[in-house]
Amino acid sequence: MKVLWITAHPEPRSLNGSLHREGVGYLEEEGHEIRTSDLYAMRFNPVVTPADFSHTEDTRLIVGHAGQEAVREGTLAPDITAEHEKLSWADTLIVQFPLWWYGMPAILKGWFDRVFVGGFAFGVRDAQGRQLRYGEGALAGKRAMVIVSAGAREASLGPRGINGELNDLLFPLQHGTLWYAGIDVLPPLLVHGADRMDAVGYAFHANALRSRLKDLPYADPLPFRHQNGGDYDDDLVLRPGLDPHLTGNAAHYRVES
Amino acid sequence: MKVLWITAHPEPRSLNGSLHREGVGYLEEEGHEIRTSDLYAMRFNPVVTPADFSHTEDTRLIVGHAGQEAVREGTLAPDITAEHEKLSWADTLIVQFPLWWYGMPAILKGWFDRVFVGGFAFGVRDAQGRQLRYGEGALAGKRAMVIVSAGAREASLGPRGINGELNDLLFPLQHGTLWYAGIDVLPPLLVHGADRMDAVGYAFHANALRSRLKDLPYADPLPFRHQNGGDYDDDLVLRPGLDPHLTGNAAHYRVES
Repeated sequence: MKVLWITAHPEPRSLNGSLHREGVGYLEEEGHEIRTSDLYAMRFNPVVTPADFSHTEDTRLIVGHAGQEAVREGTLAPDITAEHEKLSWADTLIVQFPLWWYGMPAILKGWFDRVFVGGFAFGVRDAQGRQLRYGEGALAGKRAMVIVSAGAREASLGPRGINGELNDLLFPLQHGTLWYAGIDVLPPLLVHGADRMDAVGYAFHANALRSRLKDLPYADPLPFRHQNGGDYDDDLVLRPGLDPHLTGNAAHYRVES
Repeated sequence: MKVLWITAHPEPRSLNGSLHREGVGYLEEEGHEIRTSDLYAMRFNPVVTPADFSHTEDTRLIVGHAGQEAVREGTLAPDITAEHEKLSWADTLIVQFPLWWYGMPAILKGWFDRVFVGGFAFGVRDAQGRQLRYGEGALAGKRAMVIVSAGAREASLGPRGINGELNDLLFPLQHGTLWYAGIDVLPPLLVHGADRMDAVGYAFHANALRSRLKDLPYADPLPFRHQNGGDYDDDLVLRPGLDPHLTGNAAHYRVES
């Protein structure tokens, strides 16, 4: 595999730092190639500004359009094109972060805001003019896995846990971003109890990490529905005949029969 | 009302900029007090670093603990305490943003990461040692409403729309952040079709905005369950007798009988 490992924690001595080194070491031992975007170490700027697109202030900035134009003209900021080069190289992405307010740290959210621009990760059309997204698109063929640490106990992130089920919390990232751009998404790895972890807990999670990394090329992705596969109508609403009782996130997973 | 209006768009000439000015003008006409955190105009730094907590590099940074300690010692960074002062003043919050990758722009996510620190927005306990969160906490008694613009059509953000239902996409913010900190959350206002809006569309949304702002003090909040109200067990899992068929986000709304 060619793995791009994106990680976002302010403290290298953290649990996230240890698991990152553990994972990279394991993948290298197994003969895979690894590149890392350690966003804190890079002091990555997460804030979209006109400068991303070499856009001047004399006209109104429309973010999606400006991205398309900058990709076409080759005028994207160099820190964005550097990430594009890594993404184009990789066949597999690891997205690792501590769960802050039930989402990504801002530095990582902004990596997606700035790097997944129009013309690169969305706004791509086929010869018939159909938008290629949700299972198709410029990044199709790659796989991704989210690794997320949380102070909470595992049950509280389960199907009826108060914090919300993990796949629901990650739906905007796993479905709305990665799958939107065409990337197959493997089930996430949750590192729970992060603030109270002893050596036994660490060994447990490090072992789970190695096992999931070993399985990366073979694991079944989350069965999200394809936009252009016939399940959605022209308003992009799930057809009434398909699982008519389902609403919400659950409606967008294929039910295996 | 005393309204803190938080907004996050890089372009003042945008639809978000127009609706922001429209809303502030309306509230002022109605005699309310308004303060604004326009995060792009403030060049707000969204990245949590040790400097937020006056934390030095000789010991490991544990973000939650460092926040608690800095609140206690009065050593938080001044740009964070400035936002705390506004939050303490306000009885009502407006959180306005364009939906980027089905979530908040990084500059706004980082406002919550940095401003909603331990000891201020979470990690507060009552005399019995119970964590006050999900309906209780230091910010209880305030109300909030999310205003979100999206290029997508309305149906695609509906119950079976491909992008996910809006309240599910906003669950980490509305439930996991605002309600977690004790704040009552009103139903969000969706400004759909944002990239294709003509004067008629703008008038429609401006009118909807004024109507929702007028209703702010009276509208029923989303009926999220209280953590300490008896609905959850000691593992913070919804008790089996309550709506036993429900899983996912839907389980955390009280069903009115």
